[in-house]
Amino acid sequence: MTPTARVRPAIDEARGLVDLELDRLLPAADLYPQSVHRAMRHSIFAGGKRLRPILAIESGRLLGAQDAVLVPLGAALEMIHTYSLIHDDLPALDNDDLRRGQPTCHRAFGEATAILAGDALLTLAFKVLAQLPALSADAGVTLIREVATAIGTPDGMIAGQVADLEASHESTTLATLELIHRAKTGALLRACVRAGALAARAPLEDLDRLTLYGEKVGLAFQIADDLLDVLGSTAELGKKAGKDRPQSKATYPALYGIEESRRIARKLVDEARAALEAYGVRAAPLREIADFLIERTS
Amino acid sequence: MTPTARVRPAIDEARGLVDLELDRLLPAADLYPQSVHRAMRHSIFAGGKRLRPILAIESGRLLGAQDAVLVPLGAALEMIHTYSLIHDDLPALDNDDLRRGQPTCHRAFGEATAILAGDALLTLAFKVLAQLPALSADAGVTLIREVATAIGTPDGMIAGQVADLEASHESTTLATLELIHRAKTGALLRACVRAGALAARAPLEDLDRLTLYGEKVGLAFQIADDLLDVLGSTAELGKKAGKDRPQSKATYPALYGIEESRRIARKLVDEARAALEAYGVRAAPLREIADFLIERTS
Repeated sequence: MTPTARVRPAIDEARGLVDLELDRLLPAADLYPQSVHRAMRHSIFAGGKRLRPILAIESGRLLGAQDAVLVPLGAALEMIHTYSLIHDDLPALDNDDLRRGQPTCHRAFGEATAILAGDALLTLAFKVLAQLPALSADAGVTLIREVATAIGTPDGMIAGQVADLEASHESTTLATLELIHRAKTGALLRACVRAGALAARAPLEDLDRLTLYGEKVGLAFQIADDLLDVLGSTAELGKKAGKDRPQSKATYPALYGIEESRRIARKLVDEARAALEAYGVRAAPLREIADFLIERTS
Repeated sequence: MTPTARVRPAIDEARGLVDLELDRLLPAADLYPQSVHRAMRHSIFAGGKRLRPILAIESGRLLGAQDAVLVPLGAALEMIHTYSLIHDDLPALDNDDLRRGQPTCHRAFGEATAILAGDALLTLAFKVLAQLPALSADAGVTLIREVATAIGTPDGMIAGQVADLEASHESTTLATLELIHRAKTGALLRACVRAGALAARAPLEDLDRLTLYGEKVGLAFQIADDLLDVLGSTAELGKKAGKDRPQSKATYPALYGIEESRRIARKLVDEARAALEAYGVRAAPLREIADFLIERTS
């Protein structure tokens, strides 16, 4: 049996735990005012891969944190990711009709409800982060600062979204492209890995290794996503394929070509794996996640 | 000299401290990506009364908290209020062109930037709450839970906004109207008062008194706002007067008439003042704030 075959069930189990936790934490669909709660659940349960929670959970497990903390932490991170998708899909931004093969939130529930459902998911995420069980209050506020910095501005996810919007209107340099990727998707992925390590109260040495892993994985993920957008069909992607090109958005394949983009992504995954060397076989799940990111594009 | 004359300078000074703190905490207007930072500053510095920060600061001061905690706490609460206004003004929601006499955020910067500027203010607010100086981490997470509950769903601000949107389409009962007011504006005002008390690590007895004060003030504020909307001119309001009526939104004057609404608001302010009796003259600023709310409508 390969290491891959051994770790997959553990990852699938983590995904199942996160889904149960999300169901427990989100307001019931029949709770007043229903529309926003139905909209939140529509987007949360639209078939996401739960990559961010799994990164947090497996990083935390590696360094000794308990699932009692890691599973709600993962659920909060997935709420944040979903809020960003809901707002990103809005007509004023990417104007997408499909996400993960389902109607986007505003297509299913209207724009007003979608905006407020996104706001509600972000708000609930911070509430969950502020009530993580079995975590010292000290670690709690550290974690909230880490996450808020990663998803805000000037260095986090929102800054990346704004920079991406602005870059659509002009020719994009490589420096701008890397900045956008680092902020728009990289910062949250890095924060997920670091959040797991912080929940474990990991010493700085471990935190540094996991941070490096998170940064490499974050950029590899974005390049893979760009590649899928060029290579994939709409059916496989669950969103409109080739969508990034007509708007002449900044992508790796556009700047480097497909083969060179693949090579860069593979190199990043190798570097991510190397950062985990000290942990030996215990880091198999995190290695598996890194491999999975580029498997889809080869 | 009347008590009113004595406390006004203290309140004005608190307002000045909050403005300086907001300027310190918000990303600079020339920081990349500039559009979102300019949009955040546009809406934050559009001339708000800073009612929410002042409620938090004066409640905290009454119970012995230090300005070093209360001023950034107040700034975070104002960011949350401003984010809610930016999203509420969007075309998909209230579709307002003016706010506090200035173009609304989306009119000045476009819808995409306005949505993201609101998101960024909410995110920054939680970051600031997680790094309040001279506050134990324990009090920090308590405060974040309090605020997140007050502005989320099913009992907080977002629930109130959704309920308000839905109520526009049908005839509104008094029960629904009170529920909307309590959630849409009341919950955050109440949380501001409680946040000040929590920052002071106030005993439960004090917290209960201030909570009662906050609830009465919150409802009085909303009734006064409804009255101003009927009575005021666009110039005085800085937004379109009479705007709530054509959409047949739920308001107190619509259900009770102007005179009876005034009477209810005055009674609420009297009850708010009564809740502070135990504090004698030290509670003069909080009494002054309660009086101010209805002075505008008489």
